[in-house]
Amino acid sequence: MKAGLVALLLSFAFTALLAPPLIRVLQLMKAGQTVRDDGPRRHLSKAGTPTMGGLIFLIGLTLAVLILSERSLLSFTLLGITWGYGLLGWIDDMLKVVMRRPLGLLARQKLAGQLALGLLAGIVAMLYLDRGTEVTLPFSSVQWDLGWYYPALAAVVLVATSNAVNLTDGLDGLAAGTTLLVSLAYFILTLALDKVELVIFAGALAGGCLGFLLYNFHPARVFMGDTGSLALGGAVGILSVLTRTELVLPILGGVYVLEALSVILQVVYFRLTGRRLFRMSPLHHHFELVGWSETKVVLFFWVLGLVFCGLGLYGLSWS
Amino acid sequence: MKAGLVALLLSFAFTALLAPPLIRVLQLMKAGQTVRDDGPRRHLSKAGTPTMGGLIFLIGLTLAVLILSERSLLSFTLLGITWGYGLLGWIDDMLKVVMRRPLGLLARQKLAGQLALGLLAGIVAMLYLDRGTEVTLPFSSVQWDLGWYYPALAAVVLVATSNAVNLTDGLDGLAAGTTLLVSLAYFILTLALDKVELVIFAGALAGGCLGFLLYNFHPARVFMGDTGSLALGGAVGILSVLTRTELVLPILGGVYVLEALSVILQVVYFRLTGRRLFRMSPLHHHFELVGWSETKVVLFFWVLGLVFCGLGLYGLSWS
Repeated sequence: MKAGLVALLLSFAFTALLAPPLIRVLQLMKAGQTVRDDGPRRHLSKAGTPTMGGLIFLIGLTLAVLILSERSLLSFTLLGITWGYGLLGWIDDMLKVVMRRPLGLLARQKLAGQLALGLLAGIVAMLYLDRGTEVTLPFSSVQWDLGWYYPALAAVVLVATSNAVNLTDGLDGLAAGTTLLVSLAYFILTLALDKVELVIFAGALAGGCLGFLLYNFHPARVFMGDTGSLALGGAVGILSVLTRTELVLPILGGVYVLEALSVILQVVYFRLTGRRLFRMSPLHHHFELVGWSETKVVLFFWVLGLVFCGLGLYGLSWS
Repeated sequence: MKAGLVALLLSFAFTALLAPPLIRVLQLMKAGQTVRDDGPRRHLSKAGTPTMGGLIFLIGLTLAVLILSERSLLSFTLLGITWGYGLLGWIDDMLKVVMRRPLGLLARQKLAGQLALGLLAGIVAMLYLDRGTEVTLPFSSVQWDLGWYYPALAAVVLVATSNAVNLTDGLDGLAAGTTLLVSLAYFILTLALDKVELVIFAGALAGGCLGFLLYNFHPARVFMGDTGSLALGGAVGILSVLTRTELVLPILGGVYVLEALSVILQVVYFRLTGRRLFRMSPLHHHFELVGWSETKVVLFFWVLGLVFCGLGLYGLSWS
């Protein structure tokens, strides 16, 4: 408990203190966000706010984990997978923002990188970190042993989570706040499992999100970019792998799931009927176009996130 | 947002830093907890752990609020009611622990104090703080105007909440953790209402609980005592009064309600049938006697608390 709370605090402090100088650097790099032309009209005023701010909490949480953890293979796996996804997002951001190649990486290049990292995470967890190969269904004690198929499941979880967090990142404070709640849920969960290294990582992740929110809540002074959203997805995904909660994650991260589903449903519905299901996808833009203020949408999604985290933890077998 | 997070951090830091010297003082005062003889057997080893630790977070959160708020009537009402209940608890603790009068204040003396403070809170809120006299039903927009009966409702809410938190305070980290969650819910809620003074208080309350948990999580080095539990109940109650969420509080604080209900049901059932409904009340002792470890019970109740907070916020009218 104590180490985890100290990790939360340290990571918060590092992130909060590093933010001003790093935001300055990002501005000098002209890492201004390009805003999608087809997004809600009022978002056009966000052009020029520096992006790639995910670097700030990546550095903050890493320092906290390096200081407090035992620097075992477990903590390096947690940090490595998080940085791996962050790096992938960073390449994407650089291509988009600095090189002015608006679409960034090709979809299949990005997917290949995400898949490779996911498989790596699954294999390391299975072979070296006592993960085993069973997965447990929430709200039950039903287990399946996936055997050598397990790394494929880990890869699917990590690819899906990183992309879903990426879609969630579209309003000030939305992705950071939602992930703060998920990391607090993992903080409680890993405390219950009594795994100190994981408690420290979950605490540091929560602290990083909290520190970043200081600058990212409306009106945002910095965006996390794909650097940040892919890293957060990777961090949450690897936590689920190492706590055997891959099938609980879609409940804990119900907000990510709703956002991703809204995009999929929008496309499918449009192909089938020629009409739109939502005014705009991902879902948060729909609420904006219905007339809610940006802050109201974000706070409403945080509340949903709280409900999902409660339900998800409740769905674990507490036997 | 920013002021609220800074309040959370400051209050956490003050509480965490003040704890070691204040715990030392409480030990010198011989403010050791007297453990109920009729509680679970293993709790007897807790005798001697200093109590009245609620003073630590009371001071921590007060410093944070005084530094950051506008020191308006609003913030002094929040602090005043919290300290009022804390003082009542402190008198009770002193009689029990230092004067060795095991039952503390007489029930009707305590109740009179709680009622008076509750009425005061209701009247000040109604006359000077724009509270009005309407109450809103959760999961609806039904409102009732209570008129001059409103202070009576405020008093009932504050008396019930402070007593329920008091009953919840029986395992390491239980009352502080549950109240941390409720105060985070109020943090989100007051952000949505855009009331900075309330955001600061809710943040400071959360920070105080978090800082206290460093020393109060199992195995606890200090207990909050009635000083702490009555103060936390008062703090949460006055937040509900000033945000017009008196009827949402029983959902947000569902854990408090379950604990209080278990005591009432146990007594009623025993009178009617001569048998016990739970192995022991309040509810947390029942789970212990069924064989759960103390930490497991606490973490399970935190999860319930998360679910309740999500549901409660969800039940607000977001129109």
